Amino acid sequence: MNFSSRLLENAVNEFAKLPGVGQKTALRLVLHLLNQNKEEVEAFSGALTRLKNEIRYCKECSNISDSETCEICASNKRDGSLVCIVEDTRDVMAIENTHQFNGVYHVLGGLISPMDGIGPSDLNIDRLVQRVQTGEIQEVILALSATMEGDTTIFYIYKKLKDLPVKISTIARGIAFGGEIEYADEITLARSIATRVPYTG
Amino acid sequence: MNFSSRLLENAVNEFAKLPGVGQKTALRLVLHLLNQNKEEVEAFSGALTRLKNEIRYCKECSNISDSETCEICASNKRDGSLVCIVEDTRDVMAIENTHQFNGVYHVLGGLISPMDGIGPSDLNIDRLVQRVQTGEIQEVILALSATMEGDTTIFYIYKKLKDLPVKISTIARGIAFGGEIEYADEITLARSIATRVPYTG
Repeated sequence: MNFSSRLLENAVNEFAKLPGVGQKTALRLVLHLLNQNKEEVEAFSGALTRLKNEIRYCKECSNISDSETCEICASNKRDGSLVCIVEDTRDVMAIENTHQFNGVYHVLGGLISPMDGIGPSDLNIDRLVQRVQTGEIQEVILALSATMEGDTTIFYIYKKLKDLPVKISTIARGIAFGGEIEYADEITLARSIATRVPYTG
Repeated sequence: MNFSSRLLENAVNEFAKLPGVGQKTALRLVLHLLNQNKEEVEAFSGALTRLKNEIRYCKECSNISDSETCEICASNKRDGSLVCIVEDTRDVMAIENTHQFNGVYHVLGGLISPMDGIGPSDLNIDRLVQRVQTGEIQEVILALSATMEGDTTIFYIYKKLKDLPVKISTIARGIAFGGEIEYADEITLARSIATRVPYTG
């Protein structure tokens, strides 16, 4: 692109580094911000700088938090013996939105992915083993994506935890509620038949 | 959404104000930035603050510029008697990319749009009239979008300039090069037949 200004070009290039944002979208977003008044632009960049500088991670579960211990780990209404292991804070938000899970979380901060150079030591797995070793946890639920990276991570964590006195579960896989059989992929369909459950009426 | 942190929520809400960015996309972008190191986040918000604080608009054509007069207006290789009137800097970039236009520009900063509360006085039209009144401009080309707002703006500018000694053109409308007749919309097709041009081989 043929920018009339270096300042504009810099801002567009910074936006274009964001995932899924190309140069044209970046230009549209930057010009939108340029049309806002100064206070709004400062609120935008300020919110980002403050987030980066002041963000903390819960010392128990490593979820993004404003304080040393997150609200979920600090709550006495949550069952600390049931730990749901997730990839990142988005999964915590998705599960919290169901209002069905009353335990606490453990955020790994990623999945094992040799292609991206992410090994077990880059993830928050040692801390998980420590938490389980205290003996306060009765069950861990592995709620990781059904991808190769997710399966690799599940298998690695299973090997690390299997000799400790803790029950290890994974979330159920199968046809989604409202999902139509004819549109289900073959693997999901085949597995959901293989792992069929008794119908109890 | 159920945020675990006010700081995160603020940053996501700021991103979600951008056009075409919803809460889920905003969260993805913010978490991406949070995974970058501090210098990268500062480069991002810094580029934006600098752009807003230091940006200037060319005193001739009002295009975004780093200096008082933009590179195009300052160049002695450009024909200052031919002025292309455009909506915003994106149109300047699009026309510059063609490498076919050798004149200068006049950036209106928008189009007349009563629905959005944008009237002629909100646009850079008075300055255009002044520029034409100096007598140095021989032709203006109205290169505005073929929308209701574009047509309204073209008509308004035409009325303002028609008694001044300047030739007024609009860009040609018709079937795009590579465009197939059967997929053209009715208005474009009908007009391109009505405004047919002699074939010169």
